[in-house]
Amino acid sequence: MLFSHDPHHDGSPDYVTLDGNRARLRVRVPGGADAVYANVVEDGESGLVEGELEHTADGVSWFAVHIPVQEVVTSYRFAIVRERRYTWLNQAGAHDHEVTDDGNFRLVNAPNPPSWVPGTTVYQIFPDRFARDDDSLGPLADHPDWAVPRAWDDEPAGFGPAAPGEYYGGTLEGVRRHLDHLAELGAQVVYLTPFFPARSTHRYDASSFTEVDPLLGGDEALNALTREAHARGMKVMGDLTTNHTGDEHEWFLAAKADPDSEEAGYYYFDEHPDDYVSWLNVRSLPKLDYSSAALRERVYGADDSVLVDRLGGEEGLDGWRIDVANMTGRLGAQDVNHEVSGEIAARMREAAPQAWLLAEHFYDAGPDTRHDGWHGVMNYAGFTRPVWAWLNTGPEGVRYAATHTSAPLPSSGAAEAVRAMRATNAGLPWRVRTHSVNALSTHDSARFRTVVGDPVRQAVGVAAQATLPGVPFVFAGDEIGLEGRDGENSRRTMPWHRPQDWDRQVLASHRRLLALHRELPALQSGGLRWLDAGEHHMTFLRTLGEQVVLVHLTDGPHGDRIAAPEELDAAGFEVVASEGQARVRPGEKVELSAEGPGYAVAVGTRA
Amino acid sequence: MLFSHDPHHDGSPDYVTLDGNRARLRVRVPGGADAVYANVVEDGESGLVEGELEHTADGVSWFAVHIPVQEVVTSYRFAIVRERRYTWLNQAGAHDHEVTDDGNFRLVNAPNPPSWVPGTTVYQIFPDRFARDDDSLGPLADHPDWAVPRAWDDEPAGFGPAAPGEYYGGTLEGVRRHLDHLAELGAQVVYLTPFFPARSTHRYDASSFTEVDPLLGGDEALNALTREAHARGMKVMGDLTTNHTGDEHEWFLAAKADPDSEEAGYYYFDEHPDDYVSWLNVRSLPKLDYSSAALRERVYGADDSVLVDRLGGEEGLDGWRIDVANMTGRLGAQDVNHEVSGEIAARMREAAPQAWLLAEHFYDAGPDTRHDGWHGVMNYAGFTRPVWAWLNTGPEGVRYAATHTSAPLPSSGAAEAVRAMRATNAGLPWRVRTHSVNALSTHDSARFRTVVGDPVRQAVGVAAQATLPGVPFVFAGDEIGLEGRDGENSRRTMPWHRPQDWDRQVLASHRRLLALHRELPALQSGGLRWLDAGEHHMTFLRTLGEQVVLVHLTDGPHGDRIAAPEELDAAGFEVVASEGQARVRPGEKVELSAEGPGYAVAVGTRA
Repeated sequence: MLFSHDPHHDGSPDYVTLDGNRARLRVRVPGGADAVYANVVEDGESGLVEGELEHTADGVSWFAVHIPVQEVVTSYRFAIVRERRYTWLNQAGAHDHEVTDDGNFRLVNAPNPPSWVPGTTVYQIFPDRFARDDDSLGPLADHPDWAVPRAWDDEPAGFGPAAPGEYYGGTLEGVRRHLDHLAELGAQVVYLTPFFPARSTHRYDASSFTEVDPLLGGDEALNALTREAHARGMKVMGDLTTNHTGDEHEWFLAAKADPDSEEAGYYYFDEHPDDYVSWLNVRSLPKLDYSSAALRERVYGADDSVLVDRLGGEEGLDGWRIDVANMTGRLGAQDVNHEVSGEIAARMREAAPQAWLLAEHFYDAGPDTRHDGWHGVMNYAGFTRPVWAWLNTGPEGVRYAATHTSAPLPSSGAAEAVRAMRATNAGLPWRVRTHSVNALSTHDSARFRTVVGDPVRQAVGVAAQATLPGVPFVFAGDEIGLEGRDGENSRRTMPWHRPQDWDRQVLASHRRLLALHRELPALQSGGLRWLDAGEHHMTFLRTLGEQVVLVHLTDGPHGDRIAAPEELDAAGFEVVASEGQARVRPGEKVELSAEGPGYAVAVGTRA
Repeated sequence: MLFSHDPHHDGSPDYVTLDGNRARLRVRVPGGADAVYANVVEDGESGLVEGELEHTADGVSWFAVHIPVQEVVTSYRFAIVRERRYTWLNQAGAHDHEVTDDGNFRLVNAPNPPSWVPGTTVYQIFPDRFARDDDSLGPLADHPDWAVPRAWDDEPAGFGPAAPGEYYGGTLEGVRRHLDHLAELGAQVVYLTPFFPARSTHRYDASSFTEVDPLLGGDEALNALTREAHARGMKVMGDLTTNHTGDEHEWFLAAKADPDSEEAGYYYFDEHPDDYVSWLNVRSLPKLDYSSAALRERVYGADDSVLVDRLGGEEGLDGWRIDVANMTGRLGAQDVNHEVSGEIAARMREAAPQAWLLAEHFYDAGPDTRHDGWHGVMNYAGFTRPVWAWLNTGPEGVRYAATHTSAPLPSSGAAEAVRAMRATNAGLPWRVRTHSVNALSTHDSARFRTVVGDPVRQAVGVAAQATLPGVPFVFAGDEIGLEGRDGENSRRTMPWHRPQDWDRQVLASHRRLLALHRELPALQSGGLRWLDAGEHHMTFLRTLGEQVVLVHLTDGPHGDRIAAPEELDAAGFEVVASEGQARVRPGEKVELSAEGPGYAVAVGTRA
């Protein structure tokens, strides 16, 4: 499945230049064309704007089209015409037939999201399981009523009623004590799952938003952690549940106590006080109703709102991950999701212009990102699922996510995974994709190591994470090979006291690949051009200005192949990282091969 | 490109059964599967619902999935699992990789649009050009100041400043006098382009909405026409421009006269009174601003509003075609299009529950139809463009639509046209598709006859129009072979007095094919299953209950092919219509062939 003869455009700086109210769009057309048009949608009406040929070299023509930038979103695709045959080019690729606007390229005309994001790496910490204040290992005698204390080395139960109560006693001071580990790994963002008080260790059932849970060390511990992280040049991101609270939340208690209270309007009572709408019918998680203006004020509108209060400054947060962002503001016929995400983005920009707004989204996130809202998403659909489908070995009892389904883990070849990535990412504006995260595991999934079975296959996933557009995202413990068969069971503790159990090979893979991502601008914000894919390999270029990065990922043998787009000819490529059985041999032509799982990354300079 | 081994589902009655708040979805799976799931989106969250195997026969398994129907739109696709390989099935077809929600099947949970629509045929009349009150032929001495009188046999100028003023003197009495012609053709809906007073013969620049243009015979002539049409069992549909008025409209004159007037709020004045927003910057067409509640009242809210006033009853209209529906309520960051179309649909339902609401949409209409709004669209993207791309012969100077572009008319094979139809219709809920129209020409396009050059190729288009999902739509004159190279030049007069110039062959094709559409329920609301497509042929089934219709359309020779899905084996097929060089030979297996352009339609009964 060769892509190298397809026309190409993406949202990266090589292809899009803004000049006031106009954009210059460049299109790469191997084999040339009679004409290239941009099909631009404006106020619901589509029109063609003709481009001009810039130059032709090595059989590749470059066209440029100048179009007006629109007030919010500029939506376009290209028509490439050869003897009256049209090729349509959109974010999903090249098509020999007309398509809808769904996969259009989209420029979002709004203040830019934080520029530090595309170059960073996120390290996700589930505070109860990362590290305690001290090195004790036994069950903690001092614990709240809902908690079932566990020894540090106990394995979490996995799905079941006991899971949310399993209490290991990790704290924010524990996180602070181990910032060296993050620095050595090469992670710059400490992302903490919720730290507000609750009646579970996952804390997505907040009982208050006013203080950090004393079990985690309270506000002081968070302040100390953010201070030290900032001093090291790191960022700290919190986790805010906008969709629901816990049923012991002070707002919900007030709502239940008085049907005429302001708080009663924050929730959906079918019959007050006992019949209410909750997240996926889990009664402990009553859903918030954003038709209440007062609720909006408290969640994000006011200066002391949950969102704003902890943002910015030496001891403040550098961003929020929004839990269940996909359901927020949606219930039946009501849908104020885009309104709410737009208001949150605007408030965040006022309060902390360099803060990152990252939305959880397991599914098709595209339609929720085509306005001035979430900066990026947890790109499960466009990264995690396709990579899992390709690299998993079908282990028994492993679940994709923390939801119940009998459906088996999908299995696909690399080519199908590439098609899945192209299709599912086609809905995301480019700037959203570079501000989204590429996760292999999260606290809501099985561990990637368990999914793929061995350190080399795991490293292929890490290579994908570090080289495809998006921010690498490491769930604490993945870097040392922790295992886990589902979202609950994956929340295992870090074995600080058992260094012999750390997988040093996969730790080295992480360090090497995250360093590449940090050092190569093309991996952070360069364009993505697919070259080739088959049952056992996928090959692509990331390009930015003069920098060209060639990535070859494999999970099995494939015959020798030659990838020779014109960039590679004179580039003097150098292999900068490789592992396993994938090979890139630079020379007059670049030769790619593999005898098994592996990755190879080569870097060159464009003429 | 064989489709016959693909799994299939569509929104037709064979595949979807509603039972209160639940829907039973059936999936046809050739070769069987380990499991079939419906992936259902609810409040932004996707989940899998497992189906059950109903039965297997002739190697084809049928699965059924029961899902809850949601408050407005139930959005779903299928996962068909075989040994952990997933095939995703959505409205665009079967995919070996994950896809977005864009092409999902969609059930719209709102009162049904009029049930008479899928079985009807629309005849579009541009009143100035259809027929005069009498049989006079010379230029009319009595005419308004803006008009340039023409003799009935003069050819319209085509694009240019003179075009809107060319005055031929057709009237509504002229239409009434010729209803026999429509009846003989087999058309049941008389669709009139605007009849309100204006300063052009197209009348999309209305100067008032209160009376029918006296030039056309005034309210009395319209009443007489609708009375007689109704007496014959026909319907009459008007044309309402919701996006703009003319600059001589009484509202706009009031708006210009007084910046503080209510009417000033109906329009977008950048600077009062001379700088205002207009349709595609045509100054004579100032755009309406639907942020004005008063405007909404006058256009559709009040009982004497433009929309409601003429709907229903013996002398009333049976529907409206909404002009520039795609731009209505949209300007830059403002987008109240769905709000307005939803309100219009609700008002129409109250005022005349059996009236049809048809939206003009040249482009990607899907996103505007996935709610309780327009019943259907003029499906240029999903029918007209693909059919033109396949059947056109590339005549010089012919334009697709009434907009200026230098882009050549696209040319494609039949297989690409099928892919285009599948891709572009994937966004329309099934019930919207069966309430949309399949036009080969309109008053805004070149004439299909000019596009394809000869009566047999034209008949292939008519066969497509009459057999693909959607309502056949004939622009008056197409049925006798009128020509026209662009939207203005196509507005030619009917040569009632020159019967020798009528193309009797293509008229017979129209009668035959429109009769088939009228007589075969499967062509009106049956499912659509593609069987095969190549450079010169496309072949599909329409099925409803026991009725199976096989359609084979060709524009050139192709080798003998055998289409043998299990329905065809025992069906005892009979060819009910054919023309040109396409062949369907029923027998033990159905054989399809062609040596040139043609069509063949065969009907059978399913076991």
